[in-house]
Amino acid sequence: MSRETLPFPTSSIPPLEPYLPPPSSIPATNPSQNPSPKIHLTLTYATSLDASLSLSPGTRTMLSGPHSKAMTHYLRTRHDAILVGCTTAIVDNPALNSRLETISSLDQQPRPVILDPKGRWDFDEDSQVIRLAAEWKGKGPWVVVGRGLEGEENLKERGELLERVGGRSVMVEGGGEVINSLLAEPENRWVDSVIVTVAPTWLGKGGVVVSPPRREGQQPQLRLRDVSWQPHGEDVVLCGRILRD
Amino acid sequence: MSRETLPFPTSSIPPLEPYLPPPSSIPATNPSQNPSPKIHLTLTYATSLDASLSLSPGTRTMLSGPHSKAMTHYLRTRHDAILVGCTTAIVDNPALNSRLETISSLDQQPRPVILDPKGRWDFDEDSQVIRLAAEWKGKGPWVVVGRGLEGEENLKERGELLERVGGRSVMVEGGGEVINSLLAEPENRWVDSVIVTVAPTWLGKGGVVVSPPRREGQQPQLRLRDVSWQPHGEDVVLCGRILRD
Repeated sequence: MSRETLPFPTSSIPPLEPYLPPPSSIPATNPSQNPSPKIHLTLTYATSLDASLSLSPGTRTMLSGPHSKAMTHYLRTRHDAILVGCTTAIVDNPALNSRLETISSLDQQPRPVILDPKGRWDFDEDSQVIRLAAEWKGKGPWVVVGRGLEGEENLKERGELLERVGGRSVMVEGGGEVINSLLAEPENRWVDSVIVTVAPTWLGKGGVVVSPPRREGQQPQLRLRDVSWQPHGEDVVLCGRILRD
Repeated sequence: MSRETLPFPTSSIPPLEPYLPPPSSIPATNPSQNPSPKIHLTLTYATSLDASLSLSPGTRTMLSGPHSKAMTHYLRTRHDAILVGCTTAIVDNPALNSRLETISSLDQQPRPVILDPKGRWDFDEDSQVIRLAAEWKGKGPWVVVGRGLEGEENLKERGELLERVGGRSVMVEGGGEVINSLLAEPENRWVDSVIVTVAPTWLGKGGVVVSPPRREGQQPQLRLRDVSWQPHGEDVVLCGRILRD
């Protein structure tokens, strides 16, 4: 499968930059610059007006326009790792590399990371991440398996794992379960910035919805701060950071 | 209860205008201009990123900022009638008048219309719409009661009633049940334009969600056309028209 490269207008970059990790040319191990290097986690997804990622579990749903697609491929070049849940890996068979037209070497590609606690992802040479790695068009994927990742009670460990697997910056692309886990207390402390594309459409009841679970006795409302809305074609791109008390 | 008037910047008006009914100074009964005068229905609401109007049924939830509030009061002056469901009337006890600072006479106020098929709204002198009408600060409400309004199967009649009660333009402000009914097929043919404010917050699972019901054998995806996104403070205002095949 040969696919074209994607152009992303340079004018679209500055509004995104405050929400992204420092460019990788800055050495994070320089103690004077960054005495305690921390992972930057960017949470990104595209939804309908009724907060759905797709029409139903296991259905790929085209929501956002070409700008959003090119933006995703730009954002992938700005992170060391791209993380998705195993359901997304199984259902979407995503490439998780960047086809940005400015990419010239494998070093600029992010590391695909599949979060797969129960070992459900049955990859083979038809899996795009495997094929692209064989063609030197993407890095080989890391699959995070094993106990200690299942269930809400172990989300803390999951968060700590994120810190270990991802280099210095991780972009989480989905799916619904991973996103809702990361928006829920207390895991949202792992999220540094959020980039959401909203398409002007309703998918209707029954979709895969982004809406974090509420916990007894906790303030359910989760707000963003440093908010920016950028209209692009029919869609809007929202950037922000989680508001902490 | 004395409440201040609200300023709405004139610069915010032009982006809204294409989605609003003609100003009422244009006589709709002039046959040469408008041979078959049609009701203009504007659907408007404010949601969280997870498509919730409020944390739970019966809870007023502050979502959007001051611009959105002033916009609502501007939009009320641009419609002949403001329609809400009886749950909204009971729970929110809304004023449904306009406190826009440019209002100088009762003629500029919209007619509050409460859709109350089962006669549940138990109004008295503490009901804001009643009090404001007594003080000449709002028009007296119309309450639409009676059979033929209950249940999905009678939504067609409900839609036809909208045409009868509202003068030449109706703005529907909520709540969730009315909004979802109007976004569902085939009732969405009554909707001329949609104005949605989105606040950068998640209310979490369990809120009152705007997401139209799906019907067997119908395309579930409902899109907007002629889309405009206007960032205002922390919120964004989306305007559009229902895309028809």
